[in-house]
Amino acid sequence: MSFLKEISQLVKNNFLSGIDVLSRHAAQISAEIQQGERRNYNEVLDLSSGDLHRGGIKPITFVRQVLAACLYPALLEDDSLPLDVKQRAESLLRECDGGSVGSYTDSSGIAKIKHCVSQYITRRDGGVPSSPDNIFIKSGSQTIMLKLLIRSKDSCQTGVLIPVPTYASFTLALEEQGAAIIPYHLCEEQGWTLQVEELRKALHTGRKTCNPVALYICNPGNPTGHIQSRKSIEEVIRFAAEERLFILADEVYQSCVYADDTEFYSYKKVLSEMGSTISSTVELASFNSVSKGFMGECGLRGGYVELVNLDPAVKEYARRLFSTRSCPPVVGQMALDLMANPPRPGDPSFPTFSEVSVFAELPGISCQPLKAGFFVFPCLHFPPKAIKWAKKRQMEPDMLYCLHLLEETGLHVRPGCEYGQRKDSHHIRFNIMEDALQRLKTFHTRFMKEFS
Amino acid sequence: MSFLKEISQLVKNNFLSGIDVLSRHAAQISAEIQQGERRNYNEVLDLSSGDLHRGGIKPITFVRQVLAACLYPALLEDDSLPLDVKQRAESLLRECDGGSVGSYTDSSGIAKIKHCVSQYITRRDGGVPSSPDNIFIKSGSQTIMLKLLIRSKDSCQTGVLIPVPTYASFTLALEEQGAAIIPYHLCEEQGWTLQVEELRKALHTGRKTCNPVALYICNPGNPTGHIQSRKSIEEVIRFAAEERLFILADEVYQSCVYADDTEFYSYKKVLSEMGSTISSTVELASFNSVSKGFMGECGLRGGYVELVNLDPAVKEYARRLFSTRSCPPVVGQMALDLMANPPRPGDPSFPTFSEVSVFAELPGISCQPLKAGFFVFPCLHFPPKAIKWAKKRQMEPDMLYCLHLLEETGLHVRPGCEYGQRKDSHHIRFNIMEDALQRLKTFHTRFMKEFS
Repeated sequence: MSFLKEISQLVKNNFLSGIDVLSRHAAQISAEIQQGERRNYNEVLDLSSGDLHRGGIKPITFVRQVLAACLYPALLEDDSLPLDVKQRAESLLRECDGGSVGSYTDSSGIAKIKHCVSQYITRRDGGVPSSPDNIFIKSGSQTIMLKLLIRSKDSCQTGVLIPVPTYASFTLALEEQGAAIIPYHLCEEQGWTLQVEELRKALHTGRKTCNPVALYICNPGNPTGHIQSRKSIEEVIRFAAEERLFILADEVYQSCVYADDTEFYSYKKVLSEMGSTISSTVELASFNSVSKGFMGECGLRGGYVELVNLDPAVKEYARRLFSTRSCPPVVGQMALDLMANPPRPGDPSFPTFSEVSVFAELPGISCQPLKAGFFVFPCLHFPPKAIKWAKKRQMEPDMLYCLHLLEETGLHVRPGCEYGQRKDSHHIRFNIMEDALQRLKTFHTRFMKEFS
Repeated sequence: MSFLKEISQLVKNNFLSGIDVLSRHAAQISAEIQQGERRNYNEVLDLSSGDLHRGGIKPITFVRQVLAACLYPALLEDDSLPLDVKQRAESLLRECDGGSVGSYTDSSGIAKIKHCVSQYITRRDGGVPSSPDNIFIKSGSQTIMLKLLIRSKDSCQTGVLIPVPTYASFTLALEEQGAAIIPYHLCEEQGWTLQVEELRKALHTGRKTCNPVALYICNPGNPTGHIQSRKSIEEVIRFAAEERLFILADEVYQSCVYADDTEFYSYKKVLSEMGSTISSTVELASFNSVSKGFMGECGLRGGYVELVNLDPAVKEYARRLFSTRSCPPVVGQMALDLMANPPRPGDPSFPTFSEVSVFAELPGISCQPLKAGFFVFPCLHFPPKAIKWAKKRQMEPDMLYCLHLLEETGLHVRPGCEYGQRKDSHHIRFNIMEDALQRLKTFHTRFMKEFS
């Protein structure tokens, strides 16, 4: 196809990474369809991002009513809003200086919301105590934690262990902070599980070139949709204790657990129950946000980190790092309060606070069962002809597959090469929407036939 | 007083900077008043921050109505909202994926809002063109620009010229990024003007110990309330051109100009009219935000930077730095749109969009005339007895003055030592609210009498 020549040129261009090409091409197709160009499909369907609202999921009414009333308190006089919405908005506005979401807050967040988050954590972990003093509400808290851990001036680079596959933005943040990336592979054949043996191997290799100080975990996983068992978490914590690694636990998908036999255990809960030599020493930062989970409020930028077992002097340094930045967006903070303390059965707004789940398994491609998270990361088994064809165009086969899938069906998914994968294996990542599956199936069947 | 012993102890404590002590003491007094303790005043009045809403100024109705409707689009059916509010909300929601402010946007902001900002800049500068491609909407854009300019790995530290006095958060950001701070003094006697001779002297000194690459300007000034003349800006630009310095122009107070004979000129406008050898070469980043100016929406975190004359490769690197961060908060982006394109005469909402100005001059302390910005930075002339008294307590005299002012009158202002001042000069910084002046006057008179 003629568009591919143009695209290959773009990919080769220094200024364009693969990420731009796919997204730009998707935007271009959308524009062409809007201008009346006819294709086999009526719209580009974006399966590429962890953005529920972009995917057409509606925001939760209770959340939006409370936030609208906080922004425009004249709505508190409006009879159409439920009583619990008004009460919550009034209670949140009392915590704002001047009663306005337009005022600065404490740089680590509004005290009452930190308190609310710590209560949520305690409930989640079945009573394990959480102190508001260890909660930092901040969009971008992962970057701040990296700043804390990474010594850019040391002659030996600071190393951080990260899973393969993983999502690109964390890797970019590591690179930007000057860290050495130490990859450890998740085991696809066993449902993308995290094997301590893999960690040990990776650490051993990493120690030859840098100074590994931290272990980054994404549980439930992105892009793999796996979830760690309690036993697996215990093993990882024991490993971190032995090797004196700081655990960065990205737990933003903690409320997205689908499989019947599966339960989310937080690193903090498991750690707290491991005996005092470990439970009081292993340092942990756990991240959560309103972007993922049932709310899907990515645009509001509300997130927090909870710090566990930090040396008081280090915690004080962390506090300073967090406080050199301005306060987090107040509307996002309030969304966090609503996530941590949603309406309960009996409250007027309880019925509007329903959860979201639009996932299924994809036939025709080998795919580990989806247990948690937003995404699937199925493996594509390309025939040699397809590999050759991609090589000729100087592109990754899965990237080329994604470009064709987009062109032919309007489905925008991401190639596995962006997340990391074992040599000679190929994947795609997408969030599953029911009406996308048929398009993908038809394309995939045709594609495999063409290159067989 | 007994509280002072305790406070002195706190200030000496490593873990507490002066900033915390004043704020904590203010919070403590507020709490005591709420619990019924009687003082000479009924409340602590916070004059310490550039936060209009905290100071009791009401948010602009049009702004809040549009944002509430964007968050909760059911309000678009509400008859109580004006037509232009609904139209604006609908038009903004059309730019959001899935029609939701909960979706991610482009990492440098929504394209249409960048376009709106560039039109605003063109109008402001009397027709000087501005391209959306040079606009990056981001909360924290100053830090990202510092990342771009500062080479942490060079053996010679990167230097940035900054004014004295200046506000602490920019200095903290510089320190955090590992830059060398090169202070240049503003000339208080001449209304806090910026003298190129001072810049030259500072640069000369700086070159002995670091590699100066950028010049940071705050115009209109914080904390000084000065504003640069067109001629002064030309001189500074010529200096930057000669010395090959990147200009970081913090122009967030551009809409706060009070004096009759005074007009705001942007660095970009003046630069564009200086002849092509200068106008096409001097690199400039200009910052603006919804936090300051007439909106005072600090909590929404909406700001932008416009880049001028950057080398294409450097601009591409900047684009990458901006894109490694998530998108800016969407509600803040929308507020930026409303700032850049407010209701016009004839629109239903025009009357609700009124400006704010609650400033006056303070008698009894020597103070340069306030021309622009939020703050005054009057000079306190302490008698030797007061200096001695402070020295004995190992505190800066202006810090001690602030603590006493807070304790006795409930006025929370900041000491000049936090912003930088010439040796043996002392200042306080505050935003002037009418009802604060009498309290300050009474305290100041008593204080000076006691130490004379």
